[in-house]
Amino acid sequence: MTFTIKILGAGSATPLKGRHHSAQLVSVNEHKYLIDCGEGTQYRLIEEKLNINKIEVIFISHLHGDHYYGLVGLISTMSLLGRKNQIQVFGPAGLNDIITLNFKISNTVLAFDLFIHELSGTDKQKIYEDNYAVFYSFPLNHGIQSFGYLAEEKPGLLKLVKNKISDLEVEEMVMLKNGKDVLDDQGNIKFAVKSYTLPPEPVRQYAYCSDTIYEESILPYIQEVDLLYHEATYLEEHKEKAIRNNHTTAIEAALIAKKANVKKLMIGHLSSRYEDYEAHLTEAKSVFFNTIPAIEGKSITL
Amino acid sequence: MTFTIKILGAGSATPLKGRHHSAQLVSVNEHKYLIDCGEGTQYRLIEEKLNINKIEVIFISHLHGDHYYGLVGLISTMSLLGRKNQIQVFGPAGLNDIITLNFKISNTVLAFDLFIHELSGTDKQKIYEDNYAVFYSFPLNHGIQSFGYLAEEKPGLLKLVKNKISDLEVEEMVMLKNGKDVLDDQGNIKFAVKSYTLPPEPVRQYAYCSDTIYEESILPYIQEVDLLYHEATYLEEHKEKAIRNNHTTAIEAALIAKKANVKKLMIGHLSSRYEDYEAHLTEAKSVFFNTIPAIEGKSITL
Repeated sequence: MTFTIKILGAGSATPLKGRHHSAQLVSVNEHKYLIDCGEGTQYRLIEEKLNINKIEVIFISHLHGDHYYGLVGLISTMSLLGRKNQIQVFGPAGLNDIITLNFKISNTVLAFDLFIHELSGTDKQKIYEDNYAVFYSFPLNHGIQSFGYLAEEKPGLLKLVKNKISDLEVEEMVMLKNGKDVLDDQGNIKFAVKSYTLPPEPVRQYAYCSDTIYEESILPYIQEVDLLYHEATYLEEHKEKAIRNNHTTAIEAALIAKKANVKKLMIGHLSSRYEDYEAHLTEAKSVFFNTIPAIEGKSITL
Repeated sequence: MTFTIKILGAGSATPLKGRHHSAQLVSVNEHKYLIDCGEGTQYRLIEEKLNINKIEVIFISHLHGDHYYGLVGLISTMSLLGRKNQIQVFGPAGLNDIITLNFKISNTVLAFDLFIHELSGTDKQKIYEDNYAVFYSFPLNHGIQSFGYLAEEKPGLLKLVKNKISDLEVEEMVMLKNGKDVLDDQGNIKFAVKSYTLPPEPVRQYAYCSDTIYEESILPYIQEVDLLYHEATYLEEHKEKAIRNNHTTAIEAALIAKKANVKKLMIGHLSSRYEDYEAHLTEAKSVFFNTIPAIEGKSITL
């Protein structure tokens, strides 16, 4: 089963050429989930040759413009492109008012059902589940209601014990992989799940934390994830700006990654004052070596 | 005095790679006025190396998303970039609610004054004037409150009669060009305006008509303009779609240009079903030969 993250935009609020406002496309077994939708996300999807109407669910972290100004346009375009399937949108309170007002004033009538879920809560909570993935939200600390998201793939099938595969017919393999004992004609166990299978691969997890000040209360929610995206708007020399603006430094993002014992850290949301990731990566790697930059157009496979 | 139109976006609602939602930057003597602001306009300005904070006034034609979804983001970015000068925005009713709600929910406090003028009226009216240009609005017919705009430069100075220039000192030239007779020490007319000057160049006019169905009632408002931008969403073979969706065909746009006796027609807002302008130009030129396409990144000088 594939599990990839495509970076559509990883810049901060002030736009620069080549840096786009926040948006990431999470794919689990080819099912598409969008996290954040800054202005121009629909154009970024087109540039990356991604099918806008394959997106099944949208998660918005918070209602600062650089994380949601592309949402109403994206949903409008879905409708223009003939979408019939429902779409679900999760995000902070206020989302419903914004979408409803825009569509009312522009006389927009969608050809599909739009379900808007305004989140609340001060703890991790399961908010969405389908056959492929489960999504959880948890609170971030950014001076405005803000949520991080945890995407977790559904457990795979049991694995067959390799040297016993030759005993089995195809239908028997399917039953065992799905956790069902194979019975003989008399109803007795012919091949037992516990003897013929091993546990499935561990489920992979991706956590998205943007925007937030350095906030250790999120550590339990992101423990040991395979990949953590954490904003790192500032360098250590501008730490006072990070605190004042409820953002994080590269070193602080790395500290979160280290304390949560994650496998890999991806940093992004750099202030427009920095030309590239070089100094951020140097600082972050001094604390947590397995750090990569979020670069527009790149995909990361878990 | 320069008078140019820079095409930032001239696509219709369904986005395509390389075609952007409606936005045009009108420059009169280096003063910048934005007409329409589809999603991504701030990125288009950056791509074209145009200074976002040089925009002095914004005019929105109507509140369909492809003409205004970039407005709130553009104004936010103006603030992030340190704008101090006021900005004025003109457009249909509903504009104030949209801007106010977005800024309220995102806790956005601008560092400059924002004046929102919601237009009404069923006739041409003067809505804005500064030292360089006058803007008028007039109603279009698009199934939702919609306005066309007419931009007119302020009259230039009087022109000096060439073969009399050698009689004059510099200060005398300035007086005459500004319409003031030059007097001698006794207060008698030394050089009369009527003898030493010719009328200024005729004022140039640019009219913007998008979106609208074929609507002859606009003809008096756009008579003999130097350049008319008129939407031409469809070809003649799709005229029933044009009527159903309150849009115009290329031939109809050319008919408007011909009946208004304009000097030049620029067509745009092509439906995404058409790959290029070729057929539209062929059809439009069969009625009005001096027709050009609106192409992203191009400038037209009046």
